[in-house]
Amino acid sequence: MPDAVLIYAASSHDKNLLWKTRFLAGDPVIYIEAGGRNMLVLNDLELGRGKTEAKVDEVLSLSDIEKELKDAGVKAPAVADVIVSVFKKRGEDRVFVPSTFPFELVDQLRGRGLTLTCRKDPFYPERTTKTEEEIGHIREAVKFTEQAYAKAEQALRETEIRGNELWWKGAPLTSERLRNVIDLYLYENGLLADHTIVAGGEQGVDPHCRGFGPLRPHQPIILDVFPRHLKTGYVADMTRTWVKGKASDMVRRMDAAVKAACETAFRTIKAGVESTDVHKAVQKTIEDSGFKTETINGKPQGFFHGTGHGIGLDVHESPGMGKRGSTLKAGMVVTVEPGLYYPGAGGLRIEDDVVVTTDGCVNLCSYHKNLEIP
Amino acid sequence: MPDAVLIYAASSHDKNLLWKTRFLAGDPVIYIEAGGRNMLVLNDLELGRGKTEAKVDEVLSLSDIEKELKDAGVKAPAVADVIVSVFKKRGEDRVFVPSTFPFELVDQLRGRGLTLTCRKDPFYPERTTKTEEEIGHIREAVKFTEQAYAKAEQALRETEIRGNELWWKGAPLTSERLRNVIDLYLYENGLLADHTIVAGGEQGVDPHCRGFGPLRPHQPIILDVFPRHLKTGYVADMTRTWVKGKASDMVRRMDAAVKAACETAFRTIKAGVESTDVHKAVQKTIEDSGFKTETINGKPQGFFHGTGHGIGLDVHESPGMGKRGSTLKAGMVVTVEPGLYYPGAGGLRIEDDVVVTTDGCVNLCSYHKNLEIP
Repeated sequence: MPDAVLIYAASSHDKNLLWKTRFLAGDPVIYIEAGGRNMLVLNDLELGRGKTEAKVDEVLSLSDIEKELKDAGVKAPAVADVIVSVFKKRGEDRVFVPSTFPFELVDQLRGRGLTLTCRKDPFYPERTTKTEEEIGHIREAVKFTEQAYAKAEQALRETEIRGNELWWKGAPLTSERLRNVIDLYLYENGLLADHTIVAGGEQGVDPHCRGFGPLRPHQPIILDVFPRHLKTGYVADMTRTWVKGKASDMVRRMDAAVKAACETAFRTIKAGVESTDVHKAVQKTIEDSGFKTETINGKPQGFFHGTGHGIGLDVHESPGMGKRGSTLKAGMVVTVEPGLYYPGAGGLRIEDDVVVTTDGCVNLCSYHKNLEIP
Repeated sequence: MPDAVLIYAASSHDKNLLWKTRFLAGDPVIYIEAGGRNMLVLNDLELGRGKTEAKVDEVLSLSDIEKELKDAGVKAPAVADVIVSVFKKRGEDRVFVPSTFPFELVDQLRGRGLTLTCRKDPFYPERTTKTEEEIGHIREAVKFTEQAYAKAEQALRETEIRGNELWWKGAPLTSERLRNVIDLYLYENGLLADHTIVAGGEQGVDPHCRGFGPLRPHQPIILDVFPRHLKTGYVADMTRTWVKGKASDMVRRMDAAVKAACETAFRTIKAGVESTDVHKAVQKTIEDSGFKTETINGKPQGFFHGTGHGIGLDVHESPGMGKRGSTLKAGMVVTVEPGLYYPGAGGLRIEDDVVVTTDGCVNLCSYHKNLEIP
């Protein structure tokens, strides 16, 4: 008998649930695997849509189960009562739940006789290797992302350098305006870019800074774009770093080191390889290029994040490819995104998405990696 | 001594955390209230931004704490070790966590001596009553939402009835095209509409159906729009139901009943009133208008959802205003959204956002409620 499973979550947020059921729900629903079948328990608002859309063996009516429980003497049936009743009927009392399973239900379910065990991520290991169809979805998201880069590059080419300022269409070019070029183009094409980074100069030293205010000439500008294709739910995740004008020697050397690091990853990634070993090889390339990673005055600098991560329905999913990771398998789609960050010089990161194959990897991204935009 | 509190979540998803810290993070962070102070524990990637942006008393470095723990002999410090060390230093071992607190940490923390208690929603009761500033944010979101309705209405006015078809700009008018008019306008103005409903005819009978395919003349079209203003994080939530052409007698009567139900809610809502009583009064108005709520062949019809819910950083937040609810307080912002759904006739829902005051409520929405669009 396969393991019994319980998820209580909104599939708009819990992508394991979305992946397994293909049913998008904005509020928490009960999902159960028991007795070799899987099922959703849905309220009246979701029942009709669930029966049509959800890829599960059964859709149960929450209000029917609540009614049964009331008839059996449970005065105000709680979610926990409903869950326990479904499992009991199917003779299960040992259940795997995800790491994110809500605390609210833990003691209630245990008090009603269920044994809960945390199944660590990846909750569904099969989800980490993508089907041809899923790779097609990611490829399509990449295609639109690259078109958005082309729009941003065009804007930067049209931009004029005036002393220490950048002017575009009669006004200073800001992070916000350049981000808008990207995000609007994507949205018009059905992709949602949630948190696009356009961070210039010192702002780029903080890898999570979104960027704001005027962009400057001769400084690196990090553009990290990771939109979700709303039609399919799948994402792309790409980064380019551009300098409008002339890059400093330091930034050129950073660029060369990061590109060499990308090449190391592309050469190293292959089914059967430990993703942590890919990261170590990338770290070594960065070091061999003469760049140190250290913490100065409590602020990390150099290459202080992972080499990459899986993408799919989530922007960050298994496998990790940093300090922690796992064995790479054919069909995994991972980012390769080494970066260097130094106060005074700025940040430089380049990111492509690749499919792991039995004899290497296939890069889904083909947008050029030129540093300077004239 | 105030209660100790622990949240482990991404504030992009956990709006209690976002409300309390005003720090937007896409990955889980540790948030702690202990000894009368509140603090975030952030990794190196988030540390700099956290120190600048987070409205907390302290920002602690995750890697510093991990280092301390390693120096003290903990070989590979887990998140649970870090959390327990922060609480122990501050002499706390009894901690409130939200209902959504992740299962993964529950037994680990208990095993390390913390006593966890679930604090039910609303986790921060103060969050349910909005400040003037917050009401201003919602008002601004409403303003853009009403402008988006104007764009959609304009499109529907430009639409031509050809037999059983609607034609706009040389092609059949579909749910997707009309939704695009709304969502693109909002996005261009910095608002993200996540799941806009444009559901015509029978599709409108299922309140959660987003709507798809060609729209038809002389049938009700439900437009439910609930965008987030990205600058502030606050949402609006409005619904209108339109008929292009002539509404049937049944739909006109549904429209009149729903409008009467809205008026009942506006008259009844007031600080000190139980929100469940507002819902009961609204249900009575619907019944008195001659409309029954019942389940036929397992499918609910009539008015089978709540009258409304709080809005703010979340589209659905406390207080509920249905079967369950709470005492209304001045400053709460709630939706008023009665609806009627009958197979064969379609769905009809109207929704405004109101601020509860000491002597009634103030409607933030002023968009007209005409049923027929010529």
